[in-house]
Order: sequence, then C-alpha cells, then structure tokens
Amino acid sequence: MGKLKFGTGTWIYGTVGDRYNLGGYRQGLDILERIKRISGIEGVGGIEMIYPADFGPGVDEIGEAINRAGLDCAIVGVDLTGNPEFKFGTYSSKDPAIREEAVNLTRQTIDVALALGVDRINVWPGEDGHDYPFQVDYLESWENFRDCLVKIAEYRAGVKVCIEYKLREPRVRSLISTVGKALLMCQETGRDDVGVTIDVGHSLQAGENMSESVALLAHTGRLFHFHLNDNYRGWDDDMVVGSVHLVEFLEMMYTLRKVGFDDWMSVDVYPYREDPARVVGESVSFVKGLDSLLDRIGMDAIGRAMEGDDPVAVLSMIREALFS
Amino acid sequence: MGKLKFGTGTWIYGTVGDRYNLGGYRQGLDILERIKRISGIEGVGGIEMIYPADFGPGVDEIGEAINRAGLDCAIVGVDLTGNPEFKFGTYSSKDPAIREEAVNLTRQTIDVALALGVDRINVWPGEDGHDYPFQVDYLESWENFRDCLVKIAEYRAGVKVCIEYKLREPRVRSLISTVGKALLMCQETGRDDVGVTIDVGHSLQAGENMSESVALLAHTGRLFHFHLNDNYRGWDDDMVVGSVHLVEFLEMMYTLRKVGFDDWMSVDVYPYREDPARVVGESVSFVKGLDSLLDRIGMDAIGRAMEGDDPVAVLSMIREALFS
Amino acid sequence: MGKLKFGTGTWIYGTVGDRYNLGGYRQGLDILERIKRISGIEGVGGIEMIYPADFGPGVDEIGEAINRAGLDCAIVGVDLTGNPEFKFGTYSSKDPAIREEAVNLTRQTIDVALALGVDRINVWPGEDGHDYPFQVDYLESWENFRDCLVKIAEYRAGVKVCIEYKLREPRVRSLISTVGKALLMCQETGRDDVGVTIDVGHSLQAGENMSESVALLAHTGRLFHFHLNDNYRGWDDDMVVGSVHLVEFLEMMYTLRKVGFDDWMSVDVYPYREDPARVVGESVSFVKGLDSLLDRIGMDAIGRAMEGDDPVAVLSMIREALFS
Amino acid sequence: MGKLKFGTGTWIYGTVGDRYNLGGYRQGLDILERIKRISGIEGVGGIEMIYPADFGPGVDEIGEAINRAGLDCAIVGVDLTGNPEFKFGTYSSKDPAIREEAVNLTRQTIDVALALGVDRINVWPGEDGHDYPFQVDYLESWENFRDCLVKIAEYRAGVKVCIEYKLREPRVRSLISTVGKALLMCQETGRDDVGVTIDVGHSLQAGENMSESVALLAHTGRLFHFHLNDNYRGWDDDMVVGSVHLVEFLEMMYTLRKVGFDDWMSVDVYPYREDPARVVGESVSFVKGLDSLLDRIGMDAIGRAMEGDDPVAVLSMIREALFS
Repeated sequence: MGKLKFGTGTWIYGTVGDRYNLGGYRQGLDILERIKRISGIEGVGGIEMIYPADFGPGVDEIGEAINRAGLDCAIVGVDLTGNPEFKFGTYSSKDPAIREEAVNLTRQTIDVALALGVDRINVWPGEDGHDYPFQVDYLESWENFRDCLVKIAEYRAGVKVCIEYKLREPRVRSLISTVGKALLMCQETGRDDVGVTIDVGHSLQAGENMSESVALLAHTGRLFHFHLNDNYRGWDDDMVVGSVHLVEFLEMMYTLRKVGFDDWMSVDVYPYREDPARVVGESVSFVKGLDSLLDRIGMDAIGRAMEGDDPVAVLSMIREALFS
Repeated sequence: MGKLKFGTGTWIYGTVGDRYNLGGYRQGLDILERIKRISGIEGVGGIEMIYPADFGPGVDEIGEAINRAGLDCAIVGVDLTGNPEFKFGTYSSKDPAIREEAVNLTRQTIDVALALGVDRINVWPGEDGHDYPFQVDYLESWENFRDCLVKIAEYRAGVKVCIEYKLREPRVRSLISTVGKALLMCQETGRDDVGVTIDVGHSLQAGENMSESVALLAHTGRLFHFHLNDNYRGWDDDMVVGSVHLVEFLEMMYTLRKVGFDDWMSVDVYPYREDPARVVGESVSFVKGLDSLLDRIGMDAIGRAMEGDDPVAVLSMIREALFS
Repeated sequence: MGKLKFGTGTWIYGTVGDRYNLGGYRQGLDILERIKRISGIEGVGGIEMIYPADFGPGVDEIGEAINRAGLDCAIVGVDLTGNPEFKFGTYSSKDPAIREEAVNLTRQTIDVALALGVDRINVWPGEDGHDYPFQVDYLESWENFRDCLVKIAEYRAGVKVCIEYKLREPRVRSLISTVGKALLMCQETGRDDVGVTIDVGHSLQAGENMSESVALLAHTGRLFHFHLNDNYRGWDDDMVVGSVHLVEFLEMMYTLRKVGFDDWMSVDVYPYREDPARVVGESVSFVKGLDSLLDRIGMDAIGRAMEGDDPVAVLSMIREALFS
Repeated sequence: MGKLKFGTGTWIYGTVGDRYNLGGYRQGLDILERIKRISGIEGVGGIEMIYPADFGPGVDEIGEAINRAGLDCAIVGVDLTGNPEFKFGTYSSKDPAIREEAVNLTRQTIDVALALGVDRINVWPGEDGHDYPFQVDYLESWENFRDCLVKIAEYRAGVKVCIEYKLREPRVRSLISTVGKALLMCQETGRDDVGVTIDVGHSLQAGENMSESVALLAHTGRLFHFHLNDNYRGWDDDMVVGSVHLVEFLEMMYTLRKVGFDDWMSVDVYPYREDPARVVGESVSFVKGLDSLLDRIGMDAIGRAMEGDDPVAVLSMIREALFS
C-alpha cells in the first residue's frame, strides 16, 4: 500500500444517543465546529459528509470550510435513515412517491458531491428491509431497489455510487445485508459505477471474514469505499479499531495491499461515551501500527508461509513480531 | 394457571426512535393520554409505570388517572438509563456520588410505588456493565452493585425489588446479563425481597431456554415479575409475541402453570413502526391462544408424553392440536 | 403449490455421532435396509442418495432397490467431506491433484445420477473454506472453485449442479456461505445448469430470512433443490421441522407457492438421539399442516393483508387460524 | 503471577473427527505415545488425563509413564460424553440407574486421581441438557444434577470437583451453560470442594467477558481449573490461543494476576487439521508473550489508567507496547 489515507465522518461530533436515551449522551456540535475538530485529529486528512444534514450553511461555505481546515472531502453520504417518512424503506418501498423522494434526495447528494469535487456518494439504505415475516414482498423490494439504483447511477454516469451493506439495524433484517447480496445487486444494475462500501464492522456482524469480502469486492471491481471500526461480532458496536481484534485486521491490511487498495480508509465509529477524537485517533494509530508491522514481517514472507499446509506458521510470525 | 393478567408499559406510547433517528418515528403522548389509551387495549388490565418520567403531574393525579381508567398499576420501574450522568453505570459506578444518586432515585421509586399501593419496583440497570476491555474493575462493580441493592431493599423491607437482567444494550456488555448472574446477585444480598424480572426476550437474546430460566427462578423463590415479547434471538427486538416463536412460548406457559405463576404478564414491546395497541393486543391474544391450546392438549397428557424418551411425542401433540 | 413431494436422505439411517462420540449414538444400517425403512415413512416418496458411500452394491442394484421400494431418487449427492484427503478443501484446494480428484468424483456422481434417471446432483462443499486467518488466498480459492464447477457442469450439460451453501461446519468458515455468495458463484460460471440447494436450516444459521432467499433464488432461476429442517439459528442443528419456528415456515410455504416451486422437499435432519422415522415423519406432517393452513387462510387474503402498512395484520390471521 | 504453568490434554493426540467424518482426520495415538509427545512440547509441564479412556494400561503404569516423561498430572477428567448410554444425560438423567452409573464412574475417577497424587477431577457434563422444547423437566434435571454432585463430593471430601460449563455441544442446550448457572449449582451443593473449570472458549461462546467470569469465580472461591483456547465467539472452535483475540486475553492475564491465580493453565484445543504440538506450543508461546507484555506495560500503570473515565487509555498503552 502506498501512503495510508485516513478520514472520518462528521457524525462522530453529532448527538449520540440510543433508543433509551434519545436526548443523547452528548450534544452535537455545529457543522463548522465539527469540521474544525476533525481537522485537529492526528493522522486524519479526509472528511465524510452527510447530505442534507451537514449542509445547512450551504454547499459553498461548507466546501470552503473543508478547504480551510486542510481536509479533503472523502465522500458524501445521503441520509436515508433520519427521516421517519422512510421508516418502511426508501428505494425498496412499495410506495412510488417514497421511492421518488429517495431517488431525488440521492441525486441532490450527487450534485453536492460534484460541487465539492468529489466523484462518489455513500448510500447506506438502513431502512430498507423488514422486521416481521409477511411484511414485504421480497422480490418486489429487490426489483424496486435495483430500479432506483439504476436511475441514480444514470443521473451522472461515472460518479461512483457506493452501497454500504449491513446485516441489520435499524431494521431487524436489511435488504442489502451481506457482501454477496450487495454484489448481486450491483451486478443486476448492469453498471460499473455502482459498487460497494465495505464497513468492516458490518462484515464482522454478518459473520464474514472481512479479508475474504475485500478480496471478492476487488475481484469484481466493486471495492469502492471503506469504513473502519471494531466490534464483538454480534452487533455493529462501532468501537475503536483494535479494541477487540488484531490478527484479522492485520490480514485485512495484507489483503488490501495485495489488491492494490489505495484510497480513503474512513473511521466510522460511534463514541457514545468517549471522546470522539480519542476514538478516531487511536483507531488510526492502530491501523498505522499494523501497517508497519506488515512491513516488519514482510509481504513475501507471509506469502511463502501461506504456501504450506501449516496455518500456525503465519500466527507464529505475527506473535514474534508483536512480542519480541 | 388461574385467570391470566396482562399489563403493558407506558413506554409503548412514548417517543420511539433509535440511534439514527433520535427524533423518533412517533412522538410520545402525554402520560394521561397514554394511560387512557392503554386502558382501551383489549385484554390489558395492568399498567407498568416509569419513575420519574411518568409522574410529572404528581403521584396522586397519576394514581387517580390509573384508577379512573380501570387499570391496576402492576409495577413501577426506576429509569436508570435515560440520564446521561449514568452513562458509566449506576449502582456499580466507581463514583460514590453516582451510586448515591441512583440509590436515592430508586428509593423514591419505592415511595411512589407504595403511594400507588404497589409492593414492587422494577430495576433494569441498563447502563451497568462495560463496552471495552480494561474499562472496569469487575469485582468492584459487582460489589458496589450488591451493596446498593442491599441499601435499596432495606429502605422498605418487603417491597419486592425486581432486577431485570439483559445480556447487552445499551452497554455492549451488561453486568447483570443472564439468569444465573441475576440469581447470584440476589443471593449475595442475603435478602428474600430481592428477586428477578424475567423478560423472555432478554432470555432468548442470552441464548437461554426461557422455560428453564423460569423454572430456576421459581425454584429459588425469586420469580418476581414477567416481561413478554419476541425476537430473532440475536437482539432484544421487542416484537409481537408469537411473531417468531410458538412451541417455546407454549412450553413457557406450561412451565408457568407448573410453578404456579399467578401474576402480571407485562407486554414489553417497542413498536417503532407499528400501532402500539395492535402490537400489545396481538401479543395478548396470542398468549391467550396458547393458554387455551394448553387446555385442549392437557397438562397431564403433556406430562405423560414427556416421561418417555421420545422428544417428538409432544411436538406431534402440539401439531395435531394446531392444524386439526 | 400442486401436490407436495417429500423426500429424505439415506444418512438419517447412518451412524450418527459427533466429535466427542465418533463411535456413534446409533450404528448405521446397510444401504438396502435404509432404502426399505425410508420407503416406510409416511408421506415420503423420494430418496436422496450419497455417492460413493451408498453405492457399494452397485448402481444397478441400488436403482432396483429404490424402485422396488416404490421410491423415486430425488437427487444424488457427492460426498466431499468424508475423505480426510479433502480436509483443506476440494474444488478450491490449492493442490491441483486434489481438485482433479474432487472433479472426477463429482463427474462419477453425475454418471450415477443419470444411470438412475436423475438429472441433478447435490454438491455440498463442506471442506472448502478456512479455519484461521492467513490460511488461504481467498481469491485463488474462489477462482479454483469456479473453474472446477465449470468443468463439472460441462461434463454433461443440462444436468443440474446444485450447490448447497452453508455458513460453517465442518470448517470454521465456508467458502460458499450465504445465498448471495452462492448466487455470485453460479453467475461467474456463466452457466444456467449451475444453481443452488437451499437448506433452510443453513439459511437460518446464516441469519437470512429463508423466504427472502427463496425469492432471490427463484428470481435468478437458480432455485434447484430444497432441504428442510429446523434449528435455533446459531448452528445447523438439523432438528424436526416446526420444533422451533412456525410463522417463518408458513411464510416459506407462501413464498414457494408464489414462485411456483413444484419439486422435492427433502427432509435433511440428523437424528442423533431420536428415531429417524419419527423425526422425518413429524417434519413432513408439520409441513403438510402448514400447507393446509395456507389453504384455510388463503393466498389472496394474505396478499391483500400485506398491502397495508400493518405488519400485525397477517400475524392476526395466522393466530386466528391456529387457535380457533 | 508467579511462574506460569502450562498443561494440555491427551485428546490432542486422539482421533479427531466430526459428524461428517467419524473416521477422523487423524488416527489417535497409543496413550503412552501421547504422554511422550506431550512431554516434548516446549513450555508444557502438565498433562490432563481422561478416565477411563486413558487408563487402559493400568493406573500405575500410566502414573509411571507420566513421571518418566517429566510431566505432572494436572487433573483427571471423567468422560461423560463418549458413552452412548449417556445420550440423554448423566447426573441430570431421569433414570436413576444412569445417574448411579455416572456417579460411580466419577468416583472411580477420583480414586484414579488420588492414586496419581492429584487432588482434583474435571467434570464436563456435555450430555446433560436438552435439544427440544418439552424434552426435560428442568427443575428435576437441576435437582438430580445437584444431588449427584453432592454424592460425588462427599466420596472423598476435599478433592476438588471442577465443573466445566459450556453453552452447548454436543447437546443443543447444556444444563450447566454459563458462569452464573455453574456458580449457582456449586452453591446449592453447600460444599466448598465443588467449583468451576473455566474454559475461556466456552466463556466466549456464551457471550461472556472472560475476565469478568474469572473475577466472579475468584470472588466466590470457586476458580478451580483453567482451559485455554480461542474461537470466533459463535462456537467452541478450540483454536490456537491468540489466533483471533489479543486484548481480551491480555485482560485475562491481568485479571488472573489480580486474583492471584497460580495454577495450571491447560491448553484445550482440537487440532482437526493441524499438528497438535504446533497448536499447543504456539498457544503457550502466545500466553507467555502476553505475560511479558504485561510486565512491560506494568500492572500499576494499567490500574492507574483505568481510574479515569477514558476507556481508550489502556488500549493506547497496549498498542504502543505492541507496535513500538
């Protein structure tokens, strides 16, 4: 990998709460203050924006603030979960008016991204899915979703539409839940500019090996964007990277180098009770630590050790590098 | 079982949201309106109140409203999760001032319950636990929690203090997470008036068999209160009872009859996107359906079928009763 | 759905054991005895054979025995897990000799199937995957697997090659783990005669909604074969159908009717401690019960109830039909 | 912690198979050969024996072989899963003859342990539990189990009876499934010589934080024996320690030091496809590495960092120690 590029999202300085504490553990900051704070986190050079929430002051002013802060905008995400109207879904909704509203909001997000000089948008369709059996017609949902994606991608061909899959939450079951279903959906659009955002925490939550998912996404040319965080595998805990896992994250860095990934790694955490800058900063430092560890062990040495039939071989090399 | 008694909690008419939609999918109603609406749900005779949130108009006025509505107050719960000050825990906090605040709030809840003529309070310590490794001293947490419980129970001896265990959420790991740890905690208090609220959804989430947990609680004399809902086992989805499981709920009804449970069954659901009355009403009707199914099959017939070594025997009886 | 057709596999009368009891809870029967016993299970008309294990007496004799027993052979499965040589994988192995051996074994399975007049084989690649991080090159595994599949499918074009996906076991992580990855793999072969066996227990284990997976498979023309069993969602428990779930199985029957499924439903259970005929028979009776329940409620009535935004509507209809 | 003492079990050189490969991926060695091989694993000084399987040559000869090999016997475990007669349970069985057989077998195990100069036995009741709803009377099972335990402990008072809890497998649901239920069971015996074997992989599988479980066991004076392995949290994968987790294992070492644990750490792995000596040796080296890391970081420094409200503090210290 060349030089690592880290970003984070404006939501780390938003109001963070949960269903039992809707008022929040911490009040959200003004967007301009958020930009300033993010620019102060060591190692972070990119910012991930949310439309429309982050653009109250106007796109131009936001763009200038990002520039002034010395940041690059990594991506602009469309907010498909914050509006109660979307509670039963967006692109997959059985209501054509809802679908149209969601598509229009996404097109506006593309416009905003382009205005900021960014060629990609993030689409996390958190409300698309179901809670109960017999709640949706699965095939109709799937086809509605695909048709909306096509309309969105056609709007400004070449702008990368990055679908972020997630097993569940806020819906009990998401429509685009796994790497496999995300890729199927992309392929059904018949377009190269529709791809995937892999959030490694979502991948863990779905029971995937994140490196395998990365490899599959790269293989199909659809590894478009990257979200970093950690969890205990049963839920999208959005914790400090490295607070739970290490070997699998190292394998992920190894895999990213192998597939030639050279883009933003965006730290997507949810610091309910912690200082956001500490959580992001520690995550960045951890990944950098892994990167240097990989240098110390050596890509080739790992590759050779993997040629045998001894899965303990690489584990030993890692242990020696860590503890010596 | 004698006549089934169903209740539900005031939160079903509260603002329901999630971390992505803190504004809520629906706005909470005034508490007097909530009481009125709950009284209109068929089959529901009990109401579960939360202190302090539900007592803005004063305890007397609330008590009168409950009476006027023809409801009984089943229990009063203390709110230990809504206050950001409690974000790192309540009774288990390392900060003595926080512990004292939480104990005092709980004692006030006891006062309110007694004023309403209710001899029990519900304690769900959702903020007690941890998120990260190396975040808490587990033993100190455990002992702090126990000492606070003793203080609470001593305040008005005989008032039942009902600890509601839950595997996780909002903390990534709860202190009082399983039926076993809940019972251990109760026993360490050395008091008979400290017992357990079993929320069957929490039991499912923890990988327990809910009937086994009920049996264990009854065996130790600590089956104090009961919460009903359903989920897909991986999370506390708080769904309509019977929307996922049936046989295990029937077994639960069988077990409740065997241990002679004769108290409130409180429907604790979270109707994010649904009509609360529909969700509670359907849950009540489902449990009543199970109860009559049990009558049709017969407790004795089940008991006899369980004597052999054929676990399919009871399944066949249930199937025949359901589909004939 | 037209007339339901049920089958089961010869393994139900095999030696059933686990890693702690390799000797088995019950000794396997002779294959001719297995065929005879299966023909005696009420409601079962089809048999699923395993190659090579079940063909010791020769293909002709086995075919005659199946006929004599009044059974149809539903499918022939290739055994890719019983041979320790395959411990690190079959089609995905990095060893070309192993891949060739696995492909040849599969081709022989096709020959056997054709000799029995069956146009489909089942392929469950249980050893393809990994246990440890840094154990396999994920992309190489994926491509090796795909290339072998193509060779297999080309051998006798038109014979349906049915890939059975499974999240895990015996490997800690399977290569073909979810409906999405199974479909991706099929599509990469570029062939219509490569499709999917959905084992609904595997689908539950993978956190899928089985009806959604069925719909997706039908949508892509790759719903080739069907395995029935039940579990508690965390593992492939291979239990009696209906012993845990009901509503979702009813939804599955609804979905199968909608997509026009009209083929074998093969009961794939693992009666470690139970009488195999009881386990299969009860499963068949349960599914028939669901089918008649669906008739009673009515496909159209369900469809209309799903048009509204009340997910409780269908649940109520089901409850009334079950308990009235 | 003083000097770490590592052991492992004879089963690592047994026939390792799974339900699909009952013949095994590797054939088990003669017990004398197993003892010899285990003595050759660097860092391993203790051996865990299984009764009766490992004592074919007679207790005396086995004792001499252990001595000759320079090993200490850490514990003797009673085999409660290998006998198909125990398929529906042992101490919890509703059949008094089965219970008596299991108790007698356990008493013999105590005799064997004492003959080897060992004051403890390991009891893993893998068959005690259930698979289906309505299969067992939970309370009867619980009480039968407890009564048998008392009989066992009374046989030679003072010999430590170590109950190993496990969430599930081979039964779908175990009776002694979590740390909480294990401790409850111990307390109901009213004896101090009945305690718990914590297998950290079982703890992970049960959704526990292993350090919290260790602390709770030590607090109640029932931390009797220790099994080491790693897994992905959803199953008892019995993998190389450190192949998945690191921070939580470090916290476990920290906790063990705090509670003054100074006993055998027995590596309980299941090398299906790997060289057993490599798997055990790597696990031992990893734990030693953690131990030296703890020295480098310092117990006091960690304790101080935990006093604040910044859960990232210790993570940073660990990262710096690992990557610098």
